Amino acid sequence: MDRRNDRALRARAEVVIPGGMFGHQSTALLPDDYPQYFVKAKGAHLWDADGGKVLDLMCAYGPNLFGYGDEAIDAAFIAQLRQGDTLTGPAPVMVELAETLVDMVGHADWALFCKNGGDATTMALTVARAQTRRKTVIRARGAYHGSTPWCTPRTAGVLESDRAHQILCDYNDVASLEAAVAEAGDDLAAIFAAPFRHDAFIDQAEPEAAYAARARELCDRTGALLVLDEVRAGFRLSRDCSWSHLGVEPDLSTWGKGLANGHALSALLGSDSARKGAEAIYATGSFWYQAAPMAASLEVLRRIRETDYLERLETLGERLASGLSERADAAGFGFRITGPGQMPLFLFDEDPDLRKGFFWSSAMLAKGVYVHPWHNMFLCDAMTEADIDQALDAAEASFAELRAAAPGLAPVAKMAFLSQTR
Amino acid sequence: MDRRNDRALRARAEVVIPGGMFGHQSTALLPDDYPQYFVKAKGAHLWDADGGKVLDLMCAYGPNLFGYGDEAIDAAFIAQLRQGDTLTGPAPVMVELAETLVDMVGHADWALFCKNGGDATTMALTVARAQTRRKTVIRARGAYHGSTPWCTPRTAGVLESDRAHQILCDYNDVASLEAAVAEAGDDLAAIFAAPFRHDAFIDQAEPEAAYAARARELCDRTGALLVLDEVRAGFRLSRDCSWSHLGVEPDLSTWGKGLANGHALSALLGSDSARKGAEAIYATGSFWYQAAPMAASLEVLRRIRETDYLERLETLGERLASGLSERADAAGFGFRITGPGQMPLFLFDEDPDLRKGFFWSSAMLAKGVYVHPWHNMFLCDAMTEADIDQALDAAEASFAELRAAAPGLAPVAKMAFLSQTR
Repeated sequence: MDRRNDRALRARAEVVIPGGMFGHQSTALLPDDYPQYFVKAKGAHLWDADGGKVLDLMCAYGPNLFGYGDEAIDAAFIAQLRQGDTLTGPAPVMVELAETLVDMVGHADWALFCKNGGDATTMALTVARAQTRRKTVIRARGAYHGSTPWCTPRTAGVLESDRAHQILCDYNDVASLEAAVAEAGDDLAAIFAAPFRHDAFIDQAEPEAAYAARARELCDRTGALLVLDEVRAGFRLSRDCSWSHLGVEPDLSTWGKGLANGHALSALLGSDSARKGAEAIYATGSFWYQAAPMAASLEVLRRIRETDYLERLETLGERLASGLSERADAAGFGFRITGPGQMPLFLFDEDPDLRKGFFWSSAMLAKGVYVHPWHNMFLCDAMTEADIDQALDAAEASFAELRAAAPGLAPVAKMAFLSQTR
Repeated sequence: MDRRNDRALRARAEVVIPGGMFGHQSTALLPDDYPQYFVKAKGAHLWDADGGKVLDLMCAYGPNLFGYGDEAIDAAFIAQLRQGDTLTGPAPVMVELAETLVDMVGHADWALFCKNGGDATTMALTVARAQTRRKTVIRARGAYHGSTPWCTPRTAGVLESDRAHQILCDYNDVASLEAAVAEAGDDLAAIFAAPFRHDAFIDQAEPEAAYAARARELCDRTGALLVLDEVRAGFRLSRDCSWSHLGVEPDLSTWGKGLANGHALSALLGSDSARKGAEAIYATGSFWYQAAPMAASLEVLRRIRETDYLERLETLGERLASGLSERADAAGFGFRITGPGQMPLFLFDEDPDLRKGFFWSSAMLAKGVYVHPWHNMFLCDAMTEADIDQALDAAEASFAELRAAAPGLAPVAKMAFLSQTR
């Protein structure tokens, strides 16, 4: 693959951006032939800096829910931008958006808006502590709730004090949750939970009904608040909170990513059980009242309510998972597809440094399909059955290439840390 | 003033937004007749929900640097939006923007991009700690560096541990800075400084050259990093860092607000003295790599380099300050206009609960000029001499009204806390 333009951009970036790139979109832990830069996007497709076009199964790590450059959503954004966006106060669209979210999300009685998913999770933390006048929060080991010091997964520059009054438990492990609650004693402010286990590098796991129900019971018993972190999964699994099908409602839920289909908007939703805490805290931002992303979000939410996008995502996800499973079996690979169909993660059996995963992902990319070797992916409503079939054809050929290459695959040095830490 | 629509929006918001509104754009601490909502903006003007049009001296609390709805800036934004905005990787515009900022800002060797001013200041904190492998940071009492737990001015829900390893000093007070550095011993990671004192509720103050120089010297002597927080003032006082005219360069500087003229973008700029720390930390966000705000910022930066916007802002600021001063004198009021002309703050003498300030500000509003009674304001490049003259005419009439009303002014109950805490 010709990566001349991408390499040139990387070389320039090495000079003016620490490490050449930062954060979750860095390709540092991806196969070497992955492009770092993209110059164009439409629907379910991306164009890299060297003219390559790919079907994008990452969807911008989540924000792309209805397709890149969706005409109606962007038209709503631009119309509001022309009217007024970042002003000296909010626009009426903020009230309409809060009302709409409160109507759509079962537990929600109110909304606060912000820019990052981490703004919402940090506000949830602060609201819970203000509401309960307690300090301790429980979260699952390895779960991602943002990159602010209290929860960032890489802790250079972070102090122990930034993470004081936290107890870690194991996701889906009722006993470890109960032990954490016991350890918190009478100081438990909140239990944080992801809607399912979507940690990087490991198999995803659906939430166990008993775990979700126990989290709710323990909060009720202790007067703590249950926080469901929907930033990554929100509205991809449900038109309500992701645990509503389990009959479990949180006190606080955090939203971002696809909420405005890629426009910068996140939100903290809360029940009346947390309203006083929300009134007490002070959190704000220069762009938190931007009207244009809110107008875009109203169109996103209308689409969520009025179309069969969710059933389409489920059907596409099932088609992808079953088709991949068949093809992996036929090629003789243990290939684990975990998590919800519309947010799958792929891992090969017996692949501690991901050499199989890297080879196969690179082969997919060469056939025009962008997959991620260790992070969950995302489907979007702009995808078609033909797109999924393209991915399956690419997968079949890539499994065959891997079958031929497997005996001689070199170790992936940069992923060796995985076998050391697991 | 008819505020029927604004009141109706507030009533709806009371139901679905905690306290009816949150954060720095809440009118809770403004005169009762101030509008909370705006429906339209263009250039230097805002339209409220009841059809009132005002000259806006707040400029969205800073982001409006070149005028609301600036055609060329928004065209750059929209063109990039149509090409691709939030993608699975950054667009080439990120590299171009980093190069441009490094070219324009004297101390900067690299850039990291984010969404909130507080993202940038929090990254500065973390980078400084990662770089120096020390913990303690010094900041000025009352200075605003964002609303994350480590620095938010209202601490409900915030723990002591969130603010551990911080020492407060007094801005412009060399002795207090030296005492803080002495207290930090061999653990000093950083000194934070605002480019001038722009705290709310009190007179603003220019930075004293001796204070700035001493902060630099103390950092050099101890191996700590100097962080200049340009989020509020950036590019309104200088085309470089705001302390460059004092001959003082920081190691890290934080930017936001006007960086993309209201589109959501902030940045941490750093010298090579902080590059390793920046490479070590992990901070990211779903929308941090958005290309459209970066494209808008390139047009903002071109305007900063190629036009006389800065000299215009200075001239307009001087015209406003001297005109107001004359009119206040003529009306017999002690009226303090503090801070740089393009970011002024107005306070009346002998006005502990701001009853004069509130009355006068309301009178200005009734004449179509939006001023703030206790926060610094901002001029923008879309303002004209005629706008300033309109403000001065309004001020003259408002001083006269205040002269007549002053003896009978009722206390402002909600601002009584000021006389208690000062």
